[in-house]
Amino acid sequence: MGLKLSQATRGVAPSAVREILKVAEQPDVLSFAGGLPAPELFPVEAIAAAHAAVLEREGRAALQYSTTEGYLPLREWVAADFTARGVPTQADQVLITNGSQQGLDLAARVLLDPGAVVVTENPSYLAALQVFHAARAQVVAVPSDAQGVLPEALAQVLATRDVRLLYLVPNFANPTGATLSLTRRLAVMALAQAHGVPVLEDDPYGALRYHGEPLAPLASLLPELVLSLGTFSKTLAPGLRLGWMRTPRAMRAHLVVAKQASDLHSGTLAQRATVELLRTFDYAAHVEHLRVVYGERCTVMDTTLARELPKGSRWVKPEGGLFFWVTLPEPLDALELLPLAVAQKVAYVPGAPFFVRDAAPNTLRLNFSNRAPADLREGLARLGRLLRVEVAHHAPGRASA
Amino acid sequence: MGLKLSQATRGVAPSAVREILKVAEQPDVLSFAGGLPAPELFPVEAIAAAHAAVLEREGRAALQYSTTEGYLPLREWVAADFTARGVPTQADQVLITNGSQQGLDLAARVLLDPGAVVVTENPSYLAALQVFHAARAQVVAVPSDAQGVLPEALAQVLATRDVRLLYLVPNFANPTGATLSLTRRLAVMALAQAHGVPVLEDDPYGALRYHGEPLAPLASLLPELVLSLGTFSKTLAPGLRLGWMRTPRAMRAHLVVAKQASDLHSGTLAQRATVELLRTFDYAAHVEHLRVVYGERCTVMDTTLARELPKGSRWVKPEGGLFFWVTLPEPLDALELLPLAVAQKVAYVPGAPFFVRDAAPNTLRLNFSNRAPADLREGLARLGRLLRVEVAHHAPGRASA
Repeated sequence: MGLKLSQATRGVAPSAVREILKVAEQPDVLSFAGGLPAPELFPVEAIAAAHAAVLEREGRAALQYSTTEGYLPLREWVAADFTARGVPTQADQVLITNGSQQGLDLAARVLLDPGAVVVTENPSYLAALQVFHAARAQVVAVPSDAQGVLPEALAQVLATRDVRLLYLVPNFANPTGATLSLTRRLAVMALAQAHGVPVLEDDPYGALRYHGEPLAPLASLLPELVLSLGTFSKTLAPGLRLGWMRTPRAMRAHLVVAKQASDLHSGTLAQRATVELLRTFDYAAHVEHLRVVYGERCTVMDTTLARELPKGSRWVKPEGGLFFWVTLPEPLDALELLPLAVAQKVAYVPGAPFFVRDAAPNTLRLNFSNRAPADLREGLARLGRLLRVEVAHHAPGRASA
Repeated sequence: MGLKLSQATRGVAPSAVREILKVAEQPDVLSFAGGLPAPELFPVEAIAAAHAAVLEREGRAALQYSTTEGYLPLREWVAADFTARGVPTQADQVLITNGSQQGLDLAARVLLDPGAVVVTENPSYLAALQVFHAARAQVVAVPSDAQGVLPEALAQVLATRDVRLLYLVPNFANPTGATLSLTRRLAVMALAQAHGVPVLEDDPYGALRYHGEPLAPLASLLPELVLSLGTFSKTLAPGLRLGWMRTPRAMRAHLVVAKQASDLHSGTLAQRATVELLRTFDYAAHVEHLRVVYGERCTVMDTTLARELPKGSRWVKPEGGLFFWVTLPEPLDALELLPLAVAQKVAYVPGAPFFVRDAAPNTLRLNFSNRAPADLREGLARLGRLLRVEVAHHAPGRASA
């Protein structure tokens, strides 16, 4: 007799892309597929010193069970950071999570029933879509452009559907790199308020802005309707698994109960060591250094794409974050080309899986944070050669494959 | 307009006991309410050395994203531990989790739909019940005694209901301290096999046996139908948040997907430091030392209860684990008495919340691992005085309150 699985589980298909990309993990493949921060920039020595100091001074407390909400001094730091960015926040509004991913999951648990309507951009962050699908929500995708989600299209959905959650990555979105403009932020939040729809503001990259000025966090506009997620994964180290949620007061107790059922609490030692680090290490200077290095890589990717990609390719240089979103000339198909790219020792993520509907097969996502400029140039040269050959192959006068 | 929450969230009531026990966290209260391991026994120096060595030798890898399944050498250690205990296991059957709690949660996600029937003992582990309720499962409780769940009662439920999961804590259960006897293990597993019902074997305390011989793990009897949970929280340190699942092959891929949606993966540094510790530190000797110290505390609690508790009180000295389960003479009500106990600077957990049905108000749970013998004696003396007064108050010839 077969194993009976939950409906949420039965709905999950294995990922073809993931299987191909496993091949791309060989060291001679220059992969731009991941979303990894650069390990050579991790403050390893400072993190080691912080762990040593905490274990020396307060080892027993650092290794014991602790509160579900998270270590108070860490919540105080997060609250002060929100406050400094224009979102007045108390420590009791902050919940420490295992990276942003757990924040997505807890929000879905507390806000979504099976069948509930969640609005996202199209395309949107794959792991968020995975969480919404696991919650058996209905994902309704609204078109977006280089300025983010289109308010008119959003207004139409909000007017006609009983929307339970609006999910946005307002800064340097994954996968598109787009930033929601201030005008759009105001328009979107006016719509959310008018319809009383909670907004999930997923902001893992906000601190990594390479040009332009920071824009108002969505939570600064409607602090009691916006659930904001943040993380140390991109600015400190993902292996610590530390992120946070800033919660509207009406949701807080429910989110804490959901976190307790999920895993009781986040790592005590990791939280205390991070607080020690934030006290003894110049975190602001570290983030500034990341901005300089990643900003240079961003520029190298932009100029190299301009040199290498076939005519008719389109992309917008992002203002921050980790990703370029490239649209290839039709009829190129990024998923079809991926095995050929891997054979040429270069890899990317095809764009199609990020779409909820109307997937554009000629799109792909490139990460620039995890490769030094020389590797960026070499890898994009490999990719460019392949794509130019493909374009020539599809050129008028040649038979199509 | 009010916030719309998910049905699972709306069903969760705040815990009165939790509120009272917050008061019991004052340092002058001798609390036996928690389930904490003794922090003075944490191998703090060895854990510090392991973190230092890992960060020195492989800091970048230890701080980067890693695989959802968990760090391979840690999974190999867990697989070898299962194999040594009579459950032949490969590393690819092991999934690293954030303590056992996440294992409960992932199992519920993969196996339970709303309305699905889960069978538990009565009483059962509170945080497991919380997970099943959050999954909107129907919890059907089967009576148990000092030998664990009653097979005849279980057979009746399995014959009449479409059971999707059987949840058991076979060794030194929380809250009862009871161990499922070998005869019952065989009977229960025969029933599970006959009905094709997956079994969730929650075994956080198995390594902490103070007398008697280890009994066959449930997974050794039906390795492809039993999902086994374990943890380093009781034997090493809970603050690392590291546990594991041994998964039947048919469930494995689904559990990995559920873990990925939950939080991508468990802490990379914590996993690598734990492997370093297991290689450089005598973990077996450490666990043996815990057995000696906790075994002494267990005996002290047993003898002190015999001296202090009013006549008619009942308990069974557990063979391991962290808890005594006490039945007071009727009509004493442990929940009613808790504020009086806290006023006398002693605390416990009332037993009633652990019951799914037919709650016995005269039961309570006492933890012995987290107090030295002198504190055990003093705290239980305080509790005994209070209870003897109450018994006298209820004695025949006195008006009832």
